[in-house]
Amino acid sequence: MRKQPLDGKTIILRLELDTGKAQFGSAATAIERAGGDIIAIDVIHTSRERTTRDLTVKIAHSDTSQRIAQAIEELPGIRLVNISDRTFLLHLGGKIAIQPKTPIVNRDDLSRVYTPEVARVCNAIHEDPSKAFTLTVKRNMVAVVSDGSAVLGLGNIGPYAAMPVMEGKAMLFKQFADVDAFPICLDTQDTEGIIAAVKAIAPAFGGINLEDIAAPRCFEIEQRLREELDIPVFHDDQHGTAVVLYAGLLNALKLTGRRIEEARIVVCGIGAAGTACTKMLLAGGARHVIGVDREGILTRDRHYPNGMWQWYAEHTNEERISGGLAEALNGADVFIGLSAGGILKREDVETMSASPIVFAMANPEPEIRPETVEDIVGVIATGRSDYPNQINNVLCFPGIFRGALDCRASSINEAMKLAAAEAIASVISEEELSQLYIIPSVFNQRIVDEIRRRVIHAAIESGVARRQPRE
Amino acid sequence: MRKQPLDGKTIILRLELDTGKAQFGSAATAIERAGGDIIAIDVIHTSRERTTRDLTVKIAHSDTSQRIAQAIEELPGIRLVNISDRTFLLHLGGKIAIQPKTPIVNRDDLSRVYTPEVARVCNAIHEDPSKAFTLTVKRNMVAVVSDGSAVLGLGNIGPYAAMPVMEGKAMLFKQFADVDAFPICLDTQDTEGIIAAVKAIAPAFGGINLEDIAAPRCFEIEQRLREELDIPVFHDDQHGTAVVLYAGLLNALKLTGRRIEEARIVVCGIGAAGTACTKMLLAGGARHVIGVDREGILTRDRHYPNGMWQWYAEHTNEERISGGLAEALNGADVFIGLSAGGILKREDVETMSASPIVFAMANPEPEIRPETVEDIVGVIATGRSDYPNQINNVLCFPGIFRGALDCRASSINEAMKLAAAEAIASVISEEELSQLYIIPSVFNQRIVDEIRRRVIHAAIESGVARRQPRE
Repeated sequence: MRKQPLDGKTIILRLELDTGKAQFGSAATAIERAGGDIIAIDVIHTSRERTTRDLTVKIAHSDTSQRIAQAIEELPGIRLVNISDRTFLLHLGGKIAIQPKTPIVNRDDLSRVYTPEVARVCNAIHEDPSKAFTLTVKRNMVAVVSDGSAVLGLGNIGPYAAMPVMEGKAMLFKQFADVDAFPICLDTQDTEGIIAAVKAIAPAFGGINLEDIAAPRCFEIEQRLREELDIPVFHDDQHGTAVVLYAGLLNALKLTGRRIEEARIVVCGIGAAGTACTKMLLAGGARHVIGVDREGILTRDRHYPNGMWQWYAEHTNEERISGGLAEALNGADVFIGLSAGGILKREDVETMSASPIVFAMANPEPEIRPETVEDIVGVIATGRSDYPNQINNVLCFPGIFRGALDCRASSINEAMKLAAAEAIASVISEEELSQLYIIPSVFNQRIVDEIRRRVIHAAIESGVARRQPRE
Repeated sequence: MRKQPLDGKTIILRLELDTGKAQFGSAATAIERAGGDIIAIDVIHTSRERTTRDLTVKIAHSDTSQRIAQAIEELPGIRLVNISDRTFLLHLGGKIAIQPKTPIVNRDDLSRVYTPEVARVCNAIHEDPSKAFTLTVKRNMVAVVSDGSAVLGLGNIGPYAAMPVMEGKAMLFKQFADVDAFPICLDTQDTEGIIAAVKAIAPAFGGINLEDIAAPRCFEIEQRLREELDIPVFHDDQHGTAVVLYAGLLNALKLTGRRIEEARIVVCGIGAAGTACTKMLLAGGARHVIGVDREGILTRDRHYPNGMWQWYAEHTNEERISGGLAEALNGADVFIGLSAGGILKREDVETMSASPIVFAMANPEPEIRPETVEDIVGVIATGRSDYPNQINNVLCFPGIFRGALDCRASSINEAMKLAAAEAIASVISEEELSQLYIIPSVFNQRIVDEIRRRVIHAAIESGVARRQPRE
């Protein structure tokens, strides 16, 4: 992960002081000598033997926190229980809560939301199961499901450590699109186990957002769940990335006067996201796509034990170009990187066609730093928020699920994903479009409505909508 | 289920009117002739061909709704889309929502609750998994799990139709004890499938409330999950009922001057709840318990293919009394019914000891109606809200989970259940205690705090608490 600047940060130290041995003054002195500025003291708990205090301390540099901890550990009778900063404090007790939609203050309320009246609602659903979509949370509830096997850039950290990401995602669903989402972190990394668990819990949900599940098992899990469930199943790492990337590419092509059908596109890093992006490019009309991975250009002249690569070789690179990244890039219009930091050189970009499009999305370090090629590229985008043109999944998943839930879609299909990408691209007008603005901000309030509208239309046209919502 | 009086009820009719053929005036006339009083008209949707309107209609009798529906169906060009009453309207879109605890309004918020800052929180949990209890929703989140196989008195209606009950339960958890609870209705009724699914989703939860799962599979599921998970697993139909019943019994014994050790107790209906209640009676010191089911008194002189009955026969009825309910009741102090409506007769009660205690908890029709024996019983309690002394699980589950979560208990054991029952009983003071008041109202605000306090104490004493909460 990227290091955030910590200057001017506030931390909170929880100290436990042994009444007999400790002197609070010595702790205060030690903290100030180490560079901290105590701005508040709260007594949390006190007994005859022990006092617990929270000290809010301002620090100027990121390493001050460490120095304060060391200084306190040397003091007799004082124990540093923990150091929290604002991020950790925001996470205390988790980031989401369950909210009853109506209060239960008297017997009449109780008898309606629970026994005996609730039985009439149960019976209505029992007689017509489709009523679950109107009379239960299924109408607006998405499960954010992970097995914790490929979390952010952190790798296989397991279901417990994955929870903060999934809770964060649930917050974003609610905040951006008023979708209720609940984090389900599975204590199994077995493909069949994951499939069985998700199928088992599906009745409460109107959609499944798969998240941070390692390849290749993510493919089989998604495919099987799509076949075996009648609600949308969407692996965000694949399709969310693909949709937002494709949205950015639409605007980049427009800005540089290219058509997707003629553009020569190199995709570097053929994993789950690279494959999903390529499928969208092909669905969008791209005809000249070449994939590159560790063994060089993927070509149908070879056989690959990796099923993803084999599929890729069979569906791209019709001209059977061979070689490495350099050969692939020669004369190419578009570079799409989903690989590793720093692998693209300025010399490579110079061999591309004039004003090329570079999407360097490796995280946290992009394939090439924008500042090193800004004078020779037509457009450059990254996955980072501190450069222009951030390709961020948050642009897609809230709106695409909003649309899918509102028309009660049975799946999220290719037409709906293309519609979502076009919606994101459309939020930027022709006049606004520029080298530094091909993709809108995640806080642009038009995005969700625009995606919803177009996704619903695509769902109805493609026959997966089970309800025609009012505008 | 009991029939609720519908007098003075309001219903909402949604009508779709074909613009060419329908006349709204004819619908209004038909509704009023059928006995309805239109009090509001809302236009929901209108197009050239069709108009949708919601009519709020007051009706005096429960059958008026049916008559209005028939009258409307005879009108040309008018379709009755649906009739809702207040209970159904309360259920539209479900009864709970997900609430982010902090808003995300700018990039700074986003970077803390989601990438990149969230990674530091993930790492902290990865290094020390017990931090999941402080840094995720696990601290306060309970799963309300059902397979829909034994829902209320409705039977095996499946997971979709069970949702309203589980959502209602989640509301009660929040409203009464500020516990976040999420409904998990499982699309499997296979014992191993249920166990695997609950284990798989456990990381997000600090406790599991099993609900409305049919016997005998509920026993194995609960037992296995208790062994294989490190968070409390509590089958409310068994233990919640047992706790509240035992609380009522403690006060009934006190009121009638009996000691549990000497009381002769007959339990009628030896299913999941009957067995759980009996285990609590035994744990509480009862020495003279006799079980009766369809084949009569359970006795160790016989062998029972039903495992529950066999356990029961081996652990009760030391005097080896045989016969039927009449024999069991002869001279008994306490009748506990968890069986079927109307099976207890006044003549049976007359053979019991003077001023006997009768807990007639069959639903909706108790084993005996209180009014038929109120002159000869010491105390009578039922499961119904329209008689005094309602034995209601809502008295127990919010508080017992509040206590278990706050001390991070690894299980809810017998000591904690006894403590919860004593807490409920203690809410009624000696002065308040009377024939008509042995059990507090579910809206009594002292209950949850009292249960929490005693349950935490019991958890610490019995060694299952992993945290000592502050008062």
